[in-house]
Amino acid sequence: MAANLPIDAQRLWDDVMALAGITDPEQPYTRRAFTPRFLEGRAWLRRRFAEAGLDARIDAAGNLIGRRSGHTPGKGVIMIGSHSDTVPGGGRFDGAAGVIVALEVARSLQERGIALDHDLEVIDCLAEEANVYGVSCVGSRGLSGRLTPELLAYREPGGETVAEALGRMGGDADRIAEARRDDVAAFLELHIEQGRVLESERVDVGVVRSIVGILRVELIVEGRADHAGTTPMPLRVDALCGAAAAILAVRDKAEALAAENAGYFAATIGVIEAAPNAANVVPTTARMVIDARAERRETMQRFAAWTQAELPEIVAATRARLSRVTTLSDAPQALADPSLCALVGEAADALGLSWREMASGAGHDAAMLSRVAPMTMIFTPCREGRSHCAEEWVEPEQLAAGAAVMFEAVVRIDRRNRD
Amino acid sequence: MAANLPIDAQRLWDDVMALAGITDPEQPYTRRAFTPRFLEGRAWLRRRFAEAGLDARIDAAGNLIGRRSGHTPGKGVIMIGSHSDTVPGGGRFDGAAGVIVALEVARSLQERGIALDHDLEVIDCLAEEANVYGVSCVGSRGLSGRLTPELLAYREPGGETVAEALGRMGGDADRIAEARRDDVAAFLELHIEQGRVLESERVDVGVVRSIVGILRVELIVEGRADHAGTTPMPLRVDALCGAAAAILAVRDKAEALAAENAGYFAATIGVIEAAPNAANVVPTTARMVIDARAERRETMQRFAAWTQAELPEIVAATRARLSRVTTLSDAPQALADPSLCALVGEAADALGLSWREMASGAGHDAAMLSRVAPMTMIFTPCREGRSHCAEEWVEPEQLAAGAAVMFEAVVRIDRRNRD
Repeated sequence: MAANLPIDAQRLWDDVMALAGITDPEQPYTRRAFTPRFLEGRAWLRRRFAEAGLDARIDAAGNLIGRRSGHTPGKGVIMIGSHSDTVPGGGRFDGAAGVIVALEVARSLQERGIALDHDLEVIDCLAEEANVYGVSCVGSRGLSGRLTPELLAYREPGGETVAEALGRMGGDADRIAEARRDDVAAFLELHIEQGRVLESERVDVGVVRSIVGILRVELIVEGRADHAGTTPMPLRVDALCGAAAAILAVRDKAEALAAENAGYFAATIGVIEAAPNAANVVPTTARMVIDARAERRETMQRFAAWTQAELPEIVAATRARLSRVTTLSDAPQALADPSLCALVGEAADALGLSWREMASGAGHDAAMLSRVAPMTMIFTPCREGRSHCAEEWVEPEQLAAGAAVMFEAVVRIDRRNRD
Repeated sequence: MAANLPIDAQRLWDDVMALAGITDPEQPYTRRAFTPRFLEGRAWLRRRFAEAGLDARIDAAGNLIGRRSGHTPGKGVIMIGSHSDTVPGGGRFDGAAGVIVALEVARSLQERGIALDHDLEVIDCLAEEANVYGVSCVGSRGLSGRLTPELLAYREPGGETVAEALGRMGGDADRIAEARRDDVAAFLELHIEQGRVLESERVDVGVVRSIVGILRVELIVEGRADHAGTTPMPLRVDALCGAAAAILAVRDKAEALAAENAGYFAATIGVIEAAPNAANVVPTTARMVIDARAERRETMQRFAAWTQAELPEIVAATRARLSRVTTLSDAPQALADPSLCALVGEAADALGLSWREMASGAGHDAAMLSRVAPMTMIFTPCREGRSHCAEEWVEPEQLAAGAAVMFEAVVRIDRRNRD
């Protein structure tokens, strides 16, 4: 790893820890979108933005944006950042590290007196994580013109709409169209990997070539409610045996698709509920949810077709019946801009850092931005791939390396577009 | 099926329906032990006992006993009956039908002027079903001297002990030893089969040769909490895949043991709980409960040894780990008295009814009574084998046939022991 970095690693780390300290004390590290704690974090960020010479504003979609104007009007915006909200009991880095890294890049450019032709915007996208309103990536949806009236009308259990919550965050649902951006020349987001690939391969930085599509499919298996004691084995129809066959078949199918090496693929059955879930009753129904992630649409479509055509037969072999295969959601994959990926790789090379291209298996604000701007992401390793938990961790030097790559990449983007 | 039966089929049916009508109106058919509704049912039964010329009392274990003295002191008691409590949302027949049939047998003997040498007792055993105190077969445990101080000290969530609840039912925990019976010459219990065997074979009556032992084993499978999107298939340790392998292996093992035809065997995984049970997290742990039923102790021991020795390897093949195999309970099988079984078969033959010997896959009060008296049970078919639900059903003529067999059996027991 390089010794002399173009950013201040200590200041970066201190600020990540300072923002992490703004947490629900009962459940560290929690700073959920739309809560007073979240606004407290935002107020802290705004002060930091001002100290860095950034002009801060909240756009109509509730994003906090700190701007430093470029020297050549009309070149467009280089936008960098992530999100400062967390899941309940989440970690100190998922999202927040990306916002602070972007701030540190802006500060370092300022301190080094590096003038950019492009406008630079540091962004904290509103409400990236799943939340009680049922709409994730609220801010970045707004940036890409995808925060529809339908989504704005979603309500949390207490009855407040997304539109109303947006107002509380300083946004304005009535002017949501103004949040859409067509002036972004490049979007860069730094994020912890949330996986084990970089750690296990000892690579400094991941350059994201795509963000997977995510398909959620609900499976309902039906058996027959018989007494577990009095029903001889040959006479029973056991929904949980059908579910077990489905779980293993989904794993086998996912392993086979992943082994094709035609883009990243993974599928998981993480949710199972059996009914009546009583020791003395043969299981009557089992509900499961498949989460499938594919870098290529064609692979996802093959998997989806398999769940419809072959999975019912696999379950039927146990005498149970796969009675429903329902698509709950189907978010398309997002492609990074290849020339931007190459440029980020060159930036890492220039710093003497190792890097690899990879797919992101998790969703990110960058997926939304890809609809309106060239984008890529910079991944840092994280300990044991853990995220969304208090143990989430990235080493200070790993984070600094990622920040340095972003610094170099921003300078190179600006120069590339200079001609 | 025979046309002229020694009991009054209509009166029997009407009384079963009348007792079923004493139910929680919100959740038919519910008359849980220790509740006011249960006492209402008992008051109704007491009146019916009195009308049948039976002397009613509550013993120290809370059993309602209606007695008709025999003509030859010292011959012992022929005890017939079952239980009048139900599970929540249970049916009209499980338990209650056996109490009413016993009442009908006593009434018919009385009306026909049939004097018995033996004392006859019609019994409603207290609290056979699982209940909030965590002790089932409360009354019949008392009859067999197995209602220990430890069990009497069990508490429901509100804090009341079994001993206190027994007092509310008219029993007396301080005199529990007096409930133990050593004077029972024979115990007969009629019950719906709660299975499909008699129905599928179109047999009128089952004669129970044994009541299975019941083993409950808890399994804990451990995986690793990874992000379902970002963790490539080869790097994951999925507890639910391990659980699925265990579910199918338990089914296969049970089918193999049942196919040996060395006594009844069945095993079921009816309970599964996965954690964190979230669509986007690889399952970290899975908890399951095996319910195994065996007519022979040796078969049960082979199954239990298999769960300890071979099941961990089967789970390990999925990379997950079977970290705990814990025996939750282990109730031994109970054998019926062979000569009593033969006598019941002869009674059915005399009535022109078809019958078969069979194991009971469910537990019953008769299993407790087997510790202190010769016993057997008479099973009637029930529709689709269903029980513990509102749809539980036996045809009136099927129930009448079972009652007639019990009537004939009681007369034959009395005569057999006359010499």
